[in-house]
Amino acid sequence: MLEKRTLIDVQDAVERCMANAGEMPIISVGLEESLGYYLAEDIIATYDIPMFDKSPYDGYAISSTASNGANGENRVHFRTIDHIGAGSVSNKILTANEAVRIMTGAPIPDGADAVVMLEQTVQTAEGFTLRKTFESGENISKQGEECRAGDVILSAGTLITPGVIAVLATFSYAEVPVRQKPSVALIATGSELVSLGEELAPGKIRNSNGPMIAGLLNEMAVQTESYKVTEDNYEHLLAIVQEALEKHDIVITTGGVSVGDFDYMPAIYKALAADVLFNKVAMRPGSVTTVAVKDRQMLFGLSGNPSACYSGFELFTKPVIKKMSGAAHAHAPVIKAQLSLDFKKANPFTRFIRAELDIVNNTVKPAGFNKSNAVVAIAKSNSMIILPGGTRGFEAGDEVDVMLTRLADQAQSW
Amino acid sequence: MLEKRTLIDVQDAVERCMANAGEMPIISVGLEESLGYYLAEDIIATYDIPMFDKSPYDGYAISSTASNGANGENRVHFRTIDHIGAGSVSNKILTANEAVRIMTGAPIPDGADAVVMLEQTVQTAEGFTLRKTFESGENISKQGEECRAGDVILSAGTLITPGVIAVLATFSYAEVPVRQKPSVALIATGSELVSLGEELAPGKIRNSNGPMIAGLLNEMAVQTESYKVTEDNYEHLLAIVQEALEKHDIVITTGGVSVGDFDYMPAIYKALAADVLFNKVAMRPGSVTTVAVKDRQMLFGLSGNPSACYSGFELFTKPVIKKMSGAAHAHAPVIKAQLSLDFKKANPFTRFIRAELDIVNNTVKPAGFNKSNAVVAIAKSNSMIILPGGTRGFEAGDEVDVMLTRLADQAQSW
Repeated sequence: MLEKRTLIDVQDAVERCMANAGEMPIISVGLEESLGYYLAEDIIATYDIPMFDKSPYDGYAISSTASNGANGENRVHFRTIDHIGAGSVSNKILTANEAVRIMTGAPIPDGADAVVMLEQTVQTAEGFTLRKTFESGENISKQGEECRAGDVILSAGTLITPGVIAVLATFSYAEVPVRQKPSVALIATGSELVSLGEELAPGKIRNSNGPMIAGLLNEMAVQTESYKVTEDNYEHLLAIVQEALEKHDIVITTGGVSVGDFDYMPAIYKALAADVLFNKVAMRPGSVTTVAVKDRQMLFGLSGNPSACYSGFELFTKPVIKKMSGAAHAHAPVIKAQLSLDFKKANPFTRFIRAELDIVNNTVKPAGFNKSNAVVAIAKSNSMIILPGGTRGFEAGDEVDVMLTRLADQAQSW
Repeated sequence: MLEKRTLIDVQDAVERCMANAGEMPIISVGLEESLGYYLAEDIIATYDIPMFDKSPYDGYAISSTASNGANGENRVHFRTIDHIGAGSVSNKILTANEAVRIMTGAPIPDGADAVVMLEQTVQTAEGFTLRKTFESGENISKQGEECRAGDVILSAGTLITPGVIAVLATFSYAEVPVRQKPSVALIATGSELVSLGEELAPGKIRNSNGPMIAGLLNEMAVQTESYKVTEDNYEHLLAIVQEALEKHDIVITTGGVSVGDFDYMPAIYKALAADVLFNKVAMRPGSVTTVAVKDRQMLFGLSGNPSACYSGFELFTKPVIKKMSGAAHAHAPVIKAQLSLDFKKANPFTRFIRAELDIVNNTVKPAGFNKSNAVVAIAKSNSMIILPGGTRGFEAGDEVDVMLTRLADQAQSW
């Protein structure tokens, strides 16, 4: 009567997911739309940066030899023969004791090899005087000092952040080669669920998993279609999953993966002839999390319990979406931190606890009531404590593993 | 000839910015659009969670007293009188040795006070037998065990994350009270700048600050209008800034804040009769960063050098936008980490270095070539090293302050 399930380790479950996550095709997107995608190709410098010797200051370009011997008693005089701002090129060629007034970012004129800062000069009728000897190259940003044409600047698999956009703009990328992102179907199942706006009759609860997972996908800028389950039967749910598979790369369901009489997902995987990668993981919460593959499409059967649903998404779905999107690094960092409260529960399986990490003091505590069906603790968390299976309770002061799920602003002042 | 400027500390500069950042009005947004806004009001539980005593497992609801004395030799028999899934309510009232087959999430029927898990039963024709005594309350998720109606669940000023959305959905918030976000005008100045698609003539460089800052604003889901500067003169730029101030809460300019002959921003602040909060900060890079206030609008004059521009945005603009948007915590965390490379430059002023933090090993290093005009290092950075002013160089192994600017996935496996 009870379906026989084979228990596997979390690590093994994650690896099975990742082994089945195929990279999406390469597409081209406009630079302005590229934020949050992953580079599909290495970015190679198409020219030197800086592109030309330039002035890092507002001042005067001179030939350094002309300044030889200058000091407070023997100020050297220069005559200004041109005046250029950034973006302009002087067509003068400097001879000794000639100078070009030059602004930050402007190219160094021919014949000049040093820049005198405005603050280092005393103005005269025809130019200025200075009181120190300049070296060749002084106050010049040299062509190629940051990078050279041909250098690999950023590798394929890099997340496109605003800083990456600055690099792409610098090298004239109007279009950027990226991996397409998978499109996702989201199906919240469970006859107890009612949507916002519907009456909360006795025995019913709000569908919180649907909006939560939609939010997590939204943060990854993944296109999501939410399907509404209107009838509580196997045939209806199967039809929805089939429709979703026709249109999307990934189908996420919440609920229905357990062994209850109304848990239709196991039968649906069978009807689809999907390859079930696992349906029982040695973890709490979310041990019934099920992941299946149908051709190259992936089906994530997340738990209907919010905390289990959330943890399953963070552990399995998020890295798969990142890998499919071309990420070189798909997993959140796991750091060590000191537990600031006792946690006395035994951990027969690996336990994931929605947690508040104080990253400044490197301490961590459970983010409140932490059963599988808890929801508030998810909202209060910025991380998950990971307690290894086969351990007893932990005490304040113990060092534990913590997966960073989000970077929270903690400070009220700088 | 040189404009006289008063040098202030970074801390002081940040505080002046924050003191002038007024909170935006409260608006109501749909739950699905609420991600990334900040709660404008405390969220108070409108009912207990769980709303009713419910089963956390698939099994049978029983009266615990009927199980008294059960053991392997003396299995107690139960008769199943009803069968409910989650979302359904049994209208039966249990008497001794009666049971209701009950699925995860279903409400506990009247007369029952414990749940027997499916795995703990042996099926019979009319029900099941069990072999242990159950306690009252065993395997029941009690009404209100997570939170009680009236509890303050989340405070005003909380960032709306997917977990917060789950809480809001749980408590039936179809609309959410949030602070409006400021709208931002973005104006990249500098006669050396050419946009993508335009010819990169000698002496010219690409406008990378504009797309970079647009990306940073996009990450904050702030509505941004980019203005194009088509003529290189004071009157034109003044007209653009005036137009921007008519439509936006914040005006960000990049470039033009120094003391060069084509740096029009100081004169523009004067022409606008804006209150300049500071125009010289004891920091590298970005010492000429200027922030001004005109009525309740803020003008950020960021440096035209990409690294300085980036740092100015992270230090001043980002926390101001967060505070205006209603954030209770507006500043990125600053942690201690160990320098993994020597950094021998002296630091007359507080120095900010775009850096790569290895958060797992808690080590940090500059993200490559790090002059004020560098751009690649921004792309490679996930943090900024902060070296105090008045210090000499630092060596590998020294502990330094590090501002976390983004949470980067570092791991290739879990």
